[in-house]
Amino acid sequence: MGSAPRIAIDAMGGDIGPAVMIAGAAEAYQRRSDLHFILFGDEERIRSEHAKYPQLASACDIVHCPDVITAEDRPSQAIRRAKTTSMGNAIAAVKAGEADAAVSGGNTGALMAMAKLSLRTMPGIDRPALAALLPTLGQNDLVMLDLGANTESDARNLVQFAVMGAAYSRVVLDIDKPRVKLLNIGTEELKGTDELKAAAAVLREAEYLVMRFDGFVEGDKLSHGDVDVVVTDGFSGNIALKTIEGTARFVTDLLRRAFTSSVRSKIGFLISRPATELLRHHLDPNNHNGAVFLGLNGLVVKSHGSANDKGVANAIRVAARMVREDLTRKIIEDLDNIAAHRAQAAAK
Amino acid sequence: MGSAPRIAIDAMGGDIGPAVMIAGAAEAYQRRSDLHFILFGDEERIRSEHAKYPQLASACDIVHCPDVITAEDRPSQAIRRAKTTSMGNAIAAVKAGEADAAVSGGNTGALMAMAKLSLRTMPGIDRPALAALLPTLGQNDLVMLDLGANTESDARNLVQFAVMGAAYSRVVLDIDKPRVKLLNIGTEELKGTDELKAAAAVLREAEYLVMRFDGFVEGDKLSHGDVDVVVTDGFSGNIALKTIEGTARFVTDLLRRAFTSSVRSKIGFLISRPATELLRHHLDPNNHNGAVFLGLNGLVVKSHGSANDKGVANAIRVAARMVREDLTRKIIEDLDNIAAHRAQAAAK
Repeated sequence: MGSAPRIAIDAMGGDIGPAVMIAGAAEAYQRRSDLHFILFGDEERIRSEHAKYPQLASACDIVHCPDVITAEDRPSQAIRRAKTTSMGNAIAAVKAGEADAAVSGGNTGALMAMAKLSLRTMPGIDRPALAALLPTLGQNDLVMLDLGANTESDARNLVQFAVMGAAYSRVVLDIDKPRVKLLNIGTEELKGTDELKAAAAVLREAEYLVMRFDGFVEGDKLSHGDVDVVVTDGFSGNIALKTIEGTARFVTDLLRRAFTSSVRSKIGFLISRPATELLRHHLDPNNHNGAVFLGLNGLVVKSHGSANDKGVANAIRVAARMVREDLTRKIIEDLDNIAAHRAQAAAK
Repeated sequence: MGSAPRIAIDAMGGDIGPAVMIAGAAEAYQRRSDLHFILFGDEERIRSEHAKYPQLASACDIVHCPDVITAEDRPSQAIRRAKTTSMGNAIAAVKAGEADAAVSGGNTGALMAMAKLSLRTMPGIDRPALAALLPTLGQNDLVMLDLGANTESDARNLVQFAVMGAAYSRVVLDIDKPRVKLLNIGTEELKGTDELKAAAAVLREAEYLVMRFDGFVEGDKLSHGDVDVVVTDGFSGNIALKTIEGTARFVTDLLRRAFTSSVRSKIGFLISRPATELLRHHLDPNNHNGAVFLGLNGLVVKSHGSANDKGVANAIRVAARMVREDLTRKIIEDLDNIAAHRAQAAAK
């Protein structure tokens, strides 16, 4: 790898479709012109959007797909229509080696099901996981996984999530040895489920992994900036992620109500606008857009359905970064390391 | 019941101890002077605080206890020292019928373990749950449970939590027929764990319960104000609760940073201060203080360790309200209803 990343884009996915997906591609290309795109979807609609960005002319191939996966499609229905849809063809391009990564803003469940079925799970990984970046008060974002690819996870899954999350944070956050914690309802060793305790016991011993395992973290400490990777089962992870989104919106809604509650507060708001814009920027989900399916034989990035140009550009940049840094190889190396140490320990 | 609530107060619990617990009692008493308090703890320290509130003179009994449960005590250690500690004696007063409810700001795990061992679980309830109120954008707060009394919960537990939470919301929020939802990672019937699906199936059928069961709710919709009771297993509930606390603090920290980042923004902040004070008031955990152990043969309220006078007064008011409205009887009636309908169904 190391060459120009070729990104397969499901141009039809998301709330807006081609307009925002192609605008996002143009924005990402403006920053790094070594990108190449393959745009999947309705050719006519794609061409009319594509024509707006002359700079993209030579950077794109267009592949017509007659069908689209909707938000209402069940994963099982989506799978049956993989061959005719923009989403299915974007994933198939990764599988065929024609693209290095796929980006879609479409139905998450369908994307996950299609990606799993087509790309298959990496050797050494039992279940793929969904990972995303969350803002913190510290210098770096944090990586959290699993965010809902699995409803239940055992200790073995959690250890694999830790390995994949650590590799991912090394790539996207540029951290040599990420600090990894397990999400739990207390920090004492006795707290939590048997799965968590067993996973912690394995990670505590595994000094040969490229991470620093730091024990447990509670839900109220996620944003403190003292952890780089938070590992959790998919159920709790999804609850935590959505609760973060909901609470951030709740507080900013209250703030908006407060600032519009009187003429005086409106004036104060206008004066301090640059400050609140900063806050808005920090909390804007577009700046953290791009959730990643880890553990498959191929890279797939889920862009938020409501992401704007900037958000899509971010998701594309995440995909390109994983390609350039060869994330898949890094995960395989770590898994080989675990296997080698297990074999060594067994031989003793 | 209906008579003057007698509240047993662990005067030593919490970060501050007698000063804040007794100030909180005085504040609660100012609003409703039919309260009677039994203050447990170091007699000398209690007397010196108690002397500051002449209005409390005839409203309190003081019971000296030589020992205190600390934040570091394990539940097992705490149980062994129940008889000499302020926390243990406050619970014992409820058991003996000398008090109608106990309030403590001490070690949650110890309080739960002691309360369970001393008061025992109600007939018809397999496991007690911890419930609290959360702010919403709607007119009412919502009740969420379990928040960590149990690490794992099966379908039967979840149904019992729903019954207890609905009864509690009728009492504290004054709602005739609360809207109840199960916390899940999606709203479709197929989503989530087997336990959740089984609990939903039971609740959907149980029209004889005093609640409207509305299916599933996701973590990002908790504050929308369209649900009164959110039921969850103790692990996810604790994660969600702490994530809400942490995210609210994260956003307000960002806001503080933004407002102090320049002279201009500081001026804007000062002008709009009444508005941000409103926000602060809405998010102040003291306004929602008082988590309740439901499902025991006796009422126990956990006040937050860092609660101020107002917070403690709130916890006491929650306790007094449960006594006046006879929460325990309401839960028993609902459980009897379930049992009767099951017997009827079985006889058919």
